[in-house]
Amino acid sequence: MAVADLAGVKALAFDVFGTVVDYRGTIIAEGEALNRARGLAVDWAAFADAWRARYRPNMDRVARGELPWMSLDALHRLALDELLAQFGVTTLSEEEKQRLNHVWRRLRPWPDAVAGLTRLHAKYILTTLSNGNVALLVSMARHAGLPWDFICSAELARAYKPDPRVYQMTYRLLDLRPDEVMLVAAHPSDLRAARGHGLRACFTPRPLEAGPGATPPVIAEPEVDLVASDFEELARLLGAWQKAAKQRL
Amino acid sequence: MAVADLAGVKALAFDVFGTVVDYRGTIIAEGEALNRARGLAVDWAAFADAWRARYRPNMDRVARGELPWMSLDALHRLALDELLAQFGVTTLSEEEKQRLNHVWRRLRPWPDAVAGLTRLHAKYILTTLSNGNVALLVSMARHAGLPWDFICSAELARAYKPDPRVYQMTYRLLDLRPDEVMLVAAHPSDLRAARGHGLRACFTPRPLEAGPGATPPVIAEPEVDLVASDFEELARLLGAWQKAAKQRL
Repeated sequence: MAVADLAGVKALAFDVFGTVVDYRGTIIAEGEALNRARGLAVDWAAFADAWRARYRPNMDRVARGELPWMSLDALHRLALDELLAQFGVTTLSEEEKQRLNHVWRRLRPWPDAVAGLTRLHAKYILTTLSNGNVALLVSMARHAGLPWDFICSAELARAYKPDPRVYQMTYRLLDLRPDEVMLVAAHPSDLRAARGHGLRACFTPRPLEAGPGATPPVIAEPEVDLVASDFEELARLLGAWQKAAKQRL
Repeated sequence: MAVADLAGVKALAFDVFGTVVDYRGTIIAEGEALNRARGLAVDWAAFADAWRARYRPNMDRVARGELPWMSLDALHRLALDELLAQFGVTTLSEEEKQRLNHVWRRLRPWPDAVAGLTRLHAKYILTTLSNGNVALLVSMARHAGLPWDFICSAELARAYKPDPRVYQMTYRLLDLRPDEVMLVAAHPSDLRAARGHGLRACFTPRPLEAGPGATPPVIAEPEVDLVASDFEELARLLGAWQKAAKQRL
């Protein structure tokens, strides 16, 4: 589908973990600093992969009612406590554990993310469309300088993607039609779900999300409306640089 | 209460209509432009006052179940259609009526608001705590350049202030204790309600909110935790200028 067909898009809704921020790289960097500070010898790449691997199963337990509704911060903590035991880390204080759990609030954006979002912000309403809870996403945005107009969080629907309510809430709260909102994500399943609810979909591959050894997922047109190599490329494809240039004058 | 007692405050939650933005002045300015464009002779000061006068009664009708839940945009439109008939305006197209109704999305901030919020943003999480719906508040923030970290709207609780759920939602979504959030508002009833739910409260009088002839409401310490003449004074009282200055270095 040509970019011209996207003229009606008014808001860009971003998946966050993996698409906007590099959870694996940040957890490794902060974890290695913790190794040095506390004399640990944890393999933080393995730890990050194991932490992320518990993400979907734990949300599915909430969806099936096996766990009560809990925020992603709380699900991260549930997994963290199990993984610390599994990796033999027994010396962290409660405060250190909470600080480590909140690494998800401090995740570093991919190198193009802030510049690309800032350009896109001149032309489009920018919202998250994320399973992260509000406090997590607000902290991350302040920490990283992400220019969101709205924090749209699964927490507001008390349901996790791919629950339809999360996608529907996004365009309803923005008072837009589904096809006036485009999901930007690095994950084919998320993009397919968004398209299934009438949203537009843009694939931005993040080949390093799961580490240098992993095979990145792929999805292409016509399954999505647009493919952009990163957010600066997305701004260029959508003509957002022109608007930003005008605003600077 | 001395400012030192507010050291635990992490987020400032702002009432919006009247406190951050000047609805009366904006409606008059846009209305007079409409008079000229369409050859009308509406008294827009009277119109603005009548529009605002229907705000509380219509929200109370929602609270009592006499109206289904509807957004503030929709309540504004309900009142607008009645007022256009009352003021004898019969020549506006549907598109013009919708544009006029969305004047609430384009309200102008008070002169100190953007500079004060920008300073405060360096030190505090800034959120709305408003009866405005999300789309209205997002549009207003983009239009006026208001640096909100989160759009906390009555729409998210499907209840209007002073319903307790609106205040409780604000600190819960930010993962804070009630006393870590301070409501900033020009309206004593809102501040009293916030204090009743454990929030801190700061009164910022807006003497021109209801026009030059009106008697502005007053509330003082110890009924509130702080009184600031405007948002720049608030930033000064809370030491936010120091933090902002550091960040610029």
